[in-house]
This record gives sequence, structure tokens and C-alpha cells, in this order.
Amino acid sequence: MSRHFEQAEGLCESPDSETEGYVFNQTMMRIKDPKRTLDFYTRLLGMRLIRKLDFPEMKFSLYFLGMATEEQAKQIPRDVAGRTRYTFGQPAMLELTHNWGTEDDPDFSYHNGNDQPQGFGHIGFDVPDVYRTCERLEKEGVEFVKKPDGGKMKGIAFIKDPDGYWIELFQSRKMAETV
Amino acid sequence: MSRHFEQAEGLCESPDSETEGYVFNQTMMRIKDPKRTLDFYTRLLGMRLIRKLDFPEMKFSLYFLGMATEEQAKQIPRDVAGRTRYTFGQPAMLELTHNWGTEDDPDFSYHNGNDQPQGFGHIGFDVPDVYRTCERLEKEGVEFVKKPDGGKMKGIAFIKDPDGYWIELFQSRKMAETV
Repeated sequence: MSRHFEQAEGLCESPDSETEGYVFNQTMMRIKDPKRTLDFYTRLLGMRLIRKLDFPEMKFSLYFLGMATEEQAKQIPRDVAGRTRYTFGQPAMLELTHNWGTEDDPDFSYHNGNDQPQGFGHIGFDVPDVYRTCERLEKEGVEFVKKPDGGKMKGIAFIKDPDGYWIELFQSRKMAETV
Repeated sequence: MSRHFEQAEGLCESPDSETEGYVFNQTMMRIKDPKRTLDFYTRLLGMRLIRKLDFPEMKFSLYFLGMATEEQAKQIPRDVAGRTRYTFGQPAMLELTHNWGTEDDPDFSYHNGNDQPQGFGHIGFDVPDVYRTCERLEKEGVEFVKKPDGGKMKGIAFIKDPDGYWIELFQSRKMAETV
């Protein structure tokens, strides 16, 4: 396995000044049932619901989740405009789209991008201790695609969220030994 | 349209201390041709290639892109281990997976999650001036799903990346007027 970070075809190494201030803010996935999905991302993965937007005339809601320490959470604006600005201005927000009623349809499910046809792959979390995290999630009944000791890549796990979307779990501090 | 951010069913409002230190690090999408995709994300959207990992025996490469100002970019470790730690420890990294050879297959394409079957929706960028950004991208020949003045949601645009994945563009400072 070879390692590079210096060059690749097509690469522009000095971003255009026109792109100054761009923020990679969000990743959006559709979800069937907000109740089970919010429980998963907030209770099991520690995310916070930063903003919820309801669009009754179009029968859908958006949930914006982000990570924040207790201290950081206190700094998030509590007025509507400030909260919205924060929601769309922070990096690494997870946007979940719920089309109303899908949760009551037993035959309804979303496509996770890893079954055919493929495209989107996964989202991923850096955790301080991947074995400890996986032990906890296993006790909670979370489905694993790969346990941290399975396969070649030790210390990397893949779990499924309630819709079947894949989530990679790893320890940034140990990844240099793995990849 | 009603606005809430305070409550939702299934929500855990106080993250478990077990989740302390978790970082929402990455979103992974498969790409057909790294040359055109790197050009798109680095030259047009201002991202930087933070790390490239090649897996010759499995015939794929991973490209990790992130936003960084000139000043921030100088702080990114230049040694391999430090660079890897940074790559997997920072929030808001875009991971692009390239399975070798797909770029030479004219019939090959990935699924963008918005055509059927649906699932993953889009990634999104906050930009300082969405109209200015869209004007520039239009001149560059980028395909639009929605221009900022199209439809009801003024000031929000959707473009397609080279694989057809949707990218939302908006101004966090003005979103409170829109949503």
C-alpha cells in the first residue's frame, strides 16, 4: 500500500480566492422514521438536534444534527434567526429529511447506496476508543456490517443506522497504523 | 411554515458521556473519474486534497478533501502519521472512493440517490454570496438542478457534481429569511 497526499491529476492546489469563506456544511439523507433515527443519532452517537424545520404544506420535516460539547452547545444562539444562521453555517451538520407518513408504511424503505445501484457510501465518526464504542453499540442492538476485529482493517467498524445507511467508526489516532 | 428546534420525539437532549469526543468526520461517495472530480471540488468549490490513500492490491484509491484557509492549511501536519490523524479527526471531510478503471468505461455511472431508488440526498455548502457563486459556476459549465431564483426557495441553488451527486448552495446569513 502506498501513501501520497501531495499530488493527483486534476488537482488545483491553490483554491481560487472566489471560494473564500465556503463551508462544507451538510450531508443530507432521507429517513423513514424520525423517532427511531433521532434516538439513534442523539442517544447512541451523541449528536444534538440543532434545528428542526417543518414544511406542513409539503408534508416534510428537516432535522439538522451536529456534534457539540456541553460548553459549545451553550454558545449556540437560541433566537430563531441566529439558530438558523448557525445551522447552515457550521461544518459537519447531518440533515435528515422526513417525508411524513413513511414511518407508518411497513413496505417503505430507503436505499442505502451500498446495495445496487451504488453511489453514496457512508458517513463516518472518529471515536476515542472504537472497541469500547462498538461494545456499547452491540449491547444496544445496533447492526454491524463489520466489527472492529473483522476483516483486514483492524480497528475499523461499520454499523448500520435505522434506515440501513452505513456508518464507519474508527480512531483517528490509530488510523496511521491501519491504512 | 412553523419553526422548532427545541423538541422532537425520540430525541435525547443530553448526550451520554460515553459519546464524548466523537467527531462527525466524513461523508463518502464513490466517483467514476478522480481527475474531473478533483478539478470540480478543488478548483470550483475550493476544497483541498488533504490525503490520498492507494490500495493497489484492491485496485482503489481514497481521496480525502476538506476546506482550509491558507493559514489553516499551513498548520496541517506534513508527516504521514500526523496527516492521517488529521484526516480522520477533522470534521467535514469529503471522502471520494475511486475504483480503478471506471473512468475508462463509457457505460459506467454511479447512482446519485435522488433518482429512484432514493436515499442519500445531497451535500451542501454555505457560501458568502450564492448569486455570485452560481454565476461563476454557470460560466464554468456546471449543471444546475435549481438556480437560486428558481422555484419558491429564493437564494438556494442545487448543482450537480461530475457524477451527478447533488450539491446545495446557500448563504447561512440569509437562510432565516428563506426557511
